Amino acid sequence: MFDKVLIANRGEVAVRVIRACRDMGIKTVAVYSTADADALHVQLADEAYCIGGPRLAESYLNDDAVLTCAVKSGAKAIHPGYGFFSEKASFVRDCDKYGLAFVGPSAKVIDSMGDKDAARRTAAAAGVPIVPGCDLLKSPEEATAEAERIGCPVLIKARAGGGGRGIRKVERVEDAAKAFIEARAEGEAVFGDGECYMEKFVAPAHHVEVQIMADKQGHVFSLGERECSVQRRNQKLIEESPAPCLDGHDDIRARMHKAARDLARAVGYEGAGTIEFLYSDDGNFYFMEMNTRLQVEHPVTEFVTDTDLVKWQLRVAAGQPLPFEQEDMPVRNHAMECRINAETPDFLPSCGTVTALRVPGGPRVRWDSAMFTGAKVPPYYDSMLGKLIVCAPTRDGAIRKMRSALGELVIEGVSENSELQLDVLANDEFLSGMYHTDLMGHLYADE
Amino acid sequence: MFDKVLIANRGEVAVRVIRACRDMGIKTVAVYSTADADALHVQLADEAYCIGGPRLAESYLNDDAVLTCAVKSGAKAIHPGYGFFSEKASFVRDCDKYGLAFVGPSAKVIDSMGDKDAARRTAAAAGVPIVPGCDLLKSPEEATAEAERIGCPVLIKARAGGGGRGIRKVERVEDAAKAFIEARAEGEAVFGDGECYMEKFVAPAHHVEVQIMADKQGHVFSLGERECSVQRRNQKLIEESPAPCLDGHDDIRARMHKAARDLARAVGYEGAGTIEFLYSDDGNFYFMEMNTRLQVEHPVTEFVTDTDLVKWQLRVAAGQPLPFEQEDMPVRNHAMECRINAETPDFLPSCGTVTALRVPGGPRVRWDSAMFTGAKVPPYYDSMLGKLIVCAPTRDGAIRKMRSALGELVIEGVSENSELQLDVLANDEFLSGMYHTDLMGHLYADE
Repeated sequence: MFDKVLIANRGEVAVRVIRACRDMGIKTVAVYSTADADALHVQLADEAYCIGGPRLAESYLNDDAVLTCAVKSGAKAIHPGYGFFSEKASFVRDCDKYGLAFVGPSAKVIDSMGDKDAARRTAAAAGVPIVPGCDLLKSPEEATAEAERIGCPVLIKARAGGGGRGIRKVERVEDAAKAFIEARAEGEAVFGDGECYMEKFVAPAHHVEVQIMADKQGHVFSLGERECSVQRRNQKLIEESPAPCLDGHDDIRARMHKAARDLARAVGYEGAGTIEFLYSDDGNFYFMEMNTRLQVEHPVTEFVTDTDLVKWQLRVAAGQPLPFEQEDMPVRNHAMECRINAETPDFLPSCGTVTALRVPGGPRVRWDSAMFTGAKVPPYYDSMLGKLIVCAPTRDGAIRKMRSALGELVIEGVSENSELQLDVLANDEFLSGMYHTDLMGHLYADE
Repeated sequence: MFDKVLIANRGEVAVRVIRACRDMGIKTVAVYSTADADALHVQLADEAYCIGGPRLAESYLNDDAVLTCAVKSGAKAIHPGYGFFSEKASFVRDCDKYGLAFVGPSAKVIDSMGDKDAARRTAAAAGVPIVPGCDLLKSPEEATAEAERIGCPVLIKARAGGGGRGIRKVERVEDAAKAFIEARAEGEAVFGDGECYMEKFVAPAHHVEVQIMADKQGHVFSLGERECSVQRRNQKLIEESPAPCLDGHDDIRARMHKAARDLARAVGYEGAGTIEFLYSDDGNFYFMEMNTRLQVEHPVTEFVTDTDLVKWQLRVAAGQPLPFEQEDMPVRNHAMECRINAETPDFLPSCGTVTALRVPGGPRVRWDSAMFTGAKVPPYYDSMLGKLIVCAPTRDGAIRKMRSALGELVIEGVSENSELQLDVLANDEFLSGMYHTDLMGHLYADE
């Protein structure tokens, strides 16, 4: 095992990784921006180095500064957390160059999954269902013909697209040609690449993702799935495991898990990864994308599978084989996570200093956070203050426990969204377990 | 299930029970003394009533005030927590009289186990090993003869004794007669009852206790055991499950669990209870006493058996059968609890106001406490500020996690004992897992 690991991140995930290292007797090296000098990850690490100014590009996204720190401190590995360098193939190649282990998959795997169009083809080649669609469209006429063939509604997507740009939704076949021309123009204008393909618009749908853990010895395991359909502007708010929409559909669940393992195996995956699917109420599921890193919502999986994913990431990176016995790990109980964000009731970011903090406790309640009384919430980074995770034998029990725990949580000094979370937890659609990705749109008509 | 429960306690155990009730959708009624007006259990309960002054006899031990509150508030049951009314048979009889369910065993069972001498005989009759000894001694001559027969060292104990009074340790047979006369005199003077019996002094020994859960339908289960040999002046400091001294001795463990279940069954036990044994390294174990209530250290059992004992107490009291499948429940992982007490390094009680509190978090870390920033620690009650409980796949892992979690815990405004706990966690005898009840005496020579 590595004797020293650098954590190339901040906030709750840096604290999460430092705690795992401390538990394992691994020395930790923190890096931080000038805005984070008093941050909890800096306090908890064995060593900490300031690597630049508050802006991401100056510090947490400054490859050279982080790599230099790793080499100088004698760290043997870098854990990227999520975001930042976690899916940057060139950073992984730099780690290789300096003889540093990167806690995550190879640069090649990151590349292969980072390109959406390539990932779609890789998934299809591995026998994983993808959204019905077609390859690159050559003309407006072909767009019309394909819309006819696939069946509206469809999406026309620029292959280089992202963040909602270069996408057009087509409700009627006769609008396909015009939408193709628009999407192509936007792709060219925004990404310098006008090539577009077409996919069926699957809705209503559930965002269901499968947690994968794989070792260097070729073993691939799925550790339950997570339902992540409570989203606002593509940001997840509540995640749970198991996915209630798969209740009574163990056959579909088993096929989804197998598809996820097949894809991970096909790309030679190593470490923790997540394969996201769209699941339609007609029983079909479709590959969306693979996140080649630890997810924010990993604690719900840890609760229901009784594992510590971060420790296993570190062990796999050090070459240890996974000792799990079953390809699809058994799942017990029901876990739920609420992301507590620093934001106003109008969804505007809130920053400042935490003047009071009272955290719920007791059995099966977990609080992952870098907050403390006096902690600063700077404006430069994401707005998550912490994650409240609970577990209970049933989904109803988990919902009651989450309500109770949210009721105990007190954060003063910054606005936070626990009232919003309580609204969701009281919503009939959510309570039914059969909610889709449009749930937040139903709750907030302006969304 | 009861729709409303009164919690006849304060501090962390009141909070623990209120949380369980909230999870179950049960309304809660808190009672409090004038010293506890701002206490967390008062804040978290649905209703709260001041029942008297700060002294125990004025409030928390004021039977009439508590029972009146229960009747007036419409509570259907009373949860006594631990201490206070939890082992007071007359209180249980009063509950019966007022039609209130008492969350615990019957008055008869409490009586039968509360009398030490009777409990010893009941255990023996149920086939449970008791410490070798004899019944009531009639004369100094008989004391000498029995000391000879049993073998020194022995203890001469007043049958009405308690709190260390009316007990004499006899190292040599020729001292037995004098010790008997002294113990008899002390028993008469302190308890008005000079009757004495003799037991072998078993040392070195481990304090190992078995958690029992039984329902009104006659099902009795054992839920792992706890090693509680880290004690100072009969107060437990650290508890763990499973007991490391039973590692590699599954046959002895199975016999100890069976003995505990047999005794619980013999007395018609209902609810959560604990049977304490002395375990000697020669492989023998002996019944010490039964605690007919929830124990402070119950969370370690909850971690390794994946149960919520307080919820099961409530369900059993409401007449629900336990759905467990195996008489000795399977145990997974290793859990450990450190009691965080308000005390100075010289073991003197500390009280005041908590001016800062920072609680560790992350996976498999649990904090059970009624503390918050601004909470008062009054001088009238026990000194426990909270319980830090961790779990890991192995004992070594649990020790590392506990060290790390203790390192994160910050409590300001009152003195606390986390440094002492860290000392124990670094002690070779403790680390070996084969420590006895004299461990703290080895660490602190003056003990």
